[in-house]
Amino acid sequence: MIYQLLDRLDQKFHFEQAQAHCDIPCGIYDPSAAQIAALTVVRMMDLMAQLASGEDKDNVTFHNSMERYVAVKEEHAEKVKNEIRVIWGDYFKKDKHPNVDDLVFRIMQLGSKARQTADRDAGLALVDAVNEFAEVFWGTKDVKIKKAKAPYAPGLEMVYPDL
Amino acid sequence: MIYQLLDRLDQKFHFEQAQAHCDIPCGIYDPSAAQIAALTVVRMMDLMAQLASGEDKDNVTFHNSMERYVAVKEEHAEKVKNEIRVIWGDYFKKDKHPNVDDLVFRIMQLGSKARQTADRDAGLALVDAVNEFAEVFWGTKDVKIKKAKAPYAPGLEMVYPDL
Amino acid sequence: MIYQLLDRLDQKFHFEQAQAHCDIPCGIYDPSAAQIAALTVVRMMDLMAQLASGEDKDNVTFHNSMERYVAVKEEHAEKVKNEIRVIWGDYFKKDKHPNVDDLVFRIMQLGSKARQTADRDAGLALVDAVNEFAEVFWGTKDVKIKKAKAPYAPGLEMVYPDL
Amino acid sequence: MIYQLLDRLDQKFHFEQAQAHCDIPCGIYDPSAAQIAALTVVRMMDLMAQLASGEDKDNVTFHNSMERYVAVKEEHAEKVKNEIRVIWGDYFKKDKHPNVDDLVFRIMQLGSKARQTADRDAGLALVDAVNEFAEVFWGTKDVKIKKAKAPYAPGLEMVYPDL
Amino acid sequence: MIYQLLDRLDQKFHFEQAQAHCDIPCGIYDPSAAQIAALTVVRMMDLMAQLASGEDKDNVTFHNSMERYVAVKEEHAEKVKNEIRVIWGDYFKKDKHPNVDDLVFRIMQLGSKARQTADRDAGLALVDAVNEFAEVFWGTKDVKIKKAKAPYAPGLEMVYPDL
Amino acid sequence: MIYQLLDRLDQKFHFEQAQAHCDIPCGIYDPSAAQIAALTVVRMMDLMAQLASGEDKDNVTFHNSMERYVAVKEEHAEKVKNEIRVIWGDYFKKDKHPNVDDLVFRIMQLGSKARQTADRDAGLALVDAVNEFAEVFWGTKDVKIKKAKAPYAPGLEMVYPDL
Repeated sequence: MIYQLLDRLDQKFHFEQAQAHCDIPCGIYDPSAAQIAALTVVRMMDLMAQLASGEDKDNVTFHNSMERYVAVKEEHAEKVKNEIRVIWGDYFKKDKHPNVDDLVFRIMQLGSKARQTADRDAGLALVDAVNEFAEVFWGTKDVKIKKAKAPYAPGLEMVYPDL
Repeated sequence: MIYQLLDRLDQKFHFEQAQAHCDIPCGIYDPSAAQIAALTVVRMMDLMAQLASGEDKDNVTFHNSMERYVAVKEEHAEKVKNEIRVIWGDYFKKDKHPNVDDLVFRIMQLGSKARQTADRDAGLALVDAVNEFAEVFWGTKDVKIKKAKAPYAPGLEMVYPDL
Repeated sequence: MIYQLLDRLDQKFHFEQAQAHCDIPCGIYDPSAAQIAALTVVRMMDLMAQLASGEDKDNVTFHNSMERYVAVKEEHAEKVKNEIRVIWGDYFKKDKHPNVDDLVFRIMQLGSKARQTADRDAGLALVDAVNEFAEVFWGTKDVKIKKAKAPYAPGLEMVYPDL
Repeated sequence: MIYQLLDRLDQKFHFEQAQAHCDIPCGIYDPSAAQIAALTVVRMMDLMAQLASGEDKDNVTFHNSMERYVAVKEEHAEKVKNEIRVIWGDYFKKDKHPNVDDLVFRIMQLGSKARQTADRDAGLALVDAVNEFAEVFWGTKDVKIKKAKAPYAPGLEMVYPDL
Repeated sequence: MIYQLLDRLDQKFHFEQAQAHCDIPCGIYDPSAAQIAALTVVRMMDLMAQLASGEDKDNVTFHNSMERYVAVKEEHAEKVKNEIRVIWGDYFKKDKHPNVDDLVFRIMQLGSKARQTADRDAGLALVDAVNEFAEVFWGTKDVKIKKAKAPYAPGLEMVYPDL
Repeated sequence: MIYQLLDRLDQKFHFEQAQAHCDIPCGIYDPSAAQIAALTVVRMMDLMAQLASGEDKDNVTFHNSMERYVAVKEEHAEKVKNEIRVIWGDYFKKDKHPNVDDLVFRIMQLGSKARQTADRDAGLALVDAVNEFAEVFWGTKDVKIKKAKAPYAPGLEMVYPDL
């Protein structure tokens, strides 16, 4: 059966499945969703600033766009917090990564701050912290990382696994 | 204006609004939702055990009930984790409650375990940990707590604010 | 088995489980979620009024905060309506509580009004009606109630079970 | 402006917009979503019965299908309850339709029963009650109704507006 | 058994169940949800224009209403896109309806445009395209269609199955 | 202002923002979420097969696990379809990619099939089609791709941007 073959491949390639800690357990954890969400937060902040720098702020179009940007920013800042919480609570082994609690708590607070403000620096701090988490995460799986600019605006430097 | 009156009442009664840390910031945090959700997890485990102890396990009714219990258990275990995460990330001041990280991490893991199994002890451990969190939480607001049986099955002893 | 022990405790302590009427049936109904949501509606109205009383209403921060308050108010007014509907439809025995229909209908309309306006009186009326529902609810379970100020802003007087 | 033209058309064609009662207020209420959802509940019951009448009930395919049917049944029974609640709470004028409370309460209970069981009669009773609601609803708008078989399985007779 | 009777009725009335292509497969597809959602998009645009034509645009009520209209517009434009995608991907047989891809793609783009703007013409174009889809859909089931004004604002002419 | 600096960087690095076609428009499209979701579908199929190959299929643990696998498979197959639909409808310029419609329609059908069955080949076909979509997508942005095994089970070969 195909599954048994897969099982052997699993053993051969030593996937770290973290069975004891994950939720299904499915072993598929990836910080990329949180990283893209953090980028989206900064992107919305940029679009908000661009819109607010225009002249007419009383028309329907202004309100339509502004509200959509705020709503998307909210959604993605919340997504960052949720994705990181899941990986933290389901994947990490507490005793091996003593400092991950502090990093996760910092991400929670930065995520809240990025919701409360439209301040780009708050967004950048969130992206940095999530990248730091990605680096720690891939380190636990012995996957090397590299840094590269994201292939879309705001084009910030991100941490990627070097596969 | 009514709001200003409220504002004065706020000042008079010294609500701890934790403005610097919460998400809106709205100041309305309450662990009761997480506590009820944890009780619901145990209740579903009990209903699953009761159903499985019956004789006929192949009919439509069995599958209908079992799947609903599992789905409700999943939903409420996830709710526990999410509610606790929000209070932790938005309300707590890190420097004042150094051990809250460990408790929150434990709740995350117990929440996952309560999803992975139908073992009542896992559910009870989740309820205990969430009660412990409630006690710490109300302590930060100088609200006394009391312990009483929940007024619905499974009727476990819970931590309540003594208002 | 633990479940059977629980079952006996159930019988001993006479939990009113309303098996014929609830949805799973799980027997865990609690109006506290609706009450906290109603409080949150008033809290958002207060924050909206506070924000609108400021001077600068054209900047990004104003729009960011205002939209978040409105969205949270929407969400919690809807939550009030949904939580009350579930308890009404799944728990109450029609013949025993002939006036509960009127109260529930009133809550539905007050919930809608609290979404349509930012008028604090509409919010307060919603809180009152939900407290009235809580009093009726706990009465059906022969649980005494008490009144106390909520331990967070806006600090309104709420109905609590006296456990 | 186009809107003003629309406004005049509104007045000319006497749309009953029920502005004082609806939620946005938007005036767009239609029981068809609840009716289709109720049909879907019956359809799932039929598929569950068909699946359970097969021989092999232990393989992965059986569990995959059964769980999907139950989940879709849950979702649509809940949708019935929610859609009806919204029209009831936001559109109906209490004083003019004194019996609508009883009908709505009955739908809530039938919706719950349709979730708790896989009994087709429970599903049919739900469809009947929702059709009865549709008839009352269109009556309030002076829109004639007609009865016709739904153009998809389970092909039950439904109430439609005769436009 | 009731199901077998149903099965025969199915065969007799030649329901086109499209079993090979639909998702459960349940056979219950209906474009009416997408049509009502498209109407709602236009309705919100009208309410936004009406609100913006007023004088006071700085008070809390203005922001409360505007944000709710935008949020409802977003939700329903997204609903149009999702409902159409499901029918397209689960019901249509590719080889028999070569042009449906173009129509669906057009609806996706019109749905996005209706989110990005408050321009009524964009909303009307979305309604037209969704009606065109409804006409194609009912044609595949050999159900005749008729055109009639929707029984609620904005009262646009819609495609209905002639049952 | 920081935004203007960003704007210049945007121009300098020629981000293809596809402003005319995307939804916010935000320009952040990435097929990785769909790819991870497709992998998760296969992973659930493997876990289902593994569970079903065990001996005891009547206990609570079996049902608890099986239902969670099916629910996660459903969720992620749906996520594949939704993510691909968004990129297709909001990013792609129809005239430049005439064959993308066929690929997207194929993914919709494979996504449905992956929900209807637990057949691993259906899951693998979904992963392949989504990888093909990723290759087309990155091609439109002139980003080179590479192929590498995913760093988690089921460890299939995936298409990644070569950043």
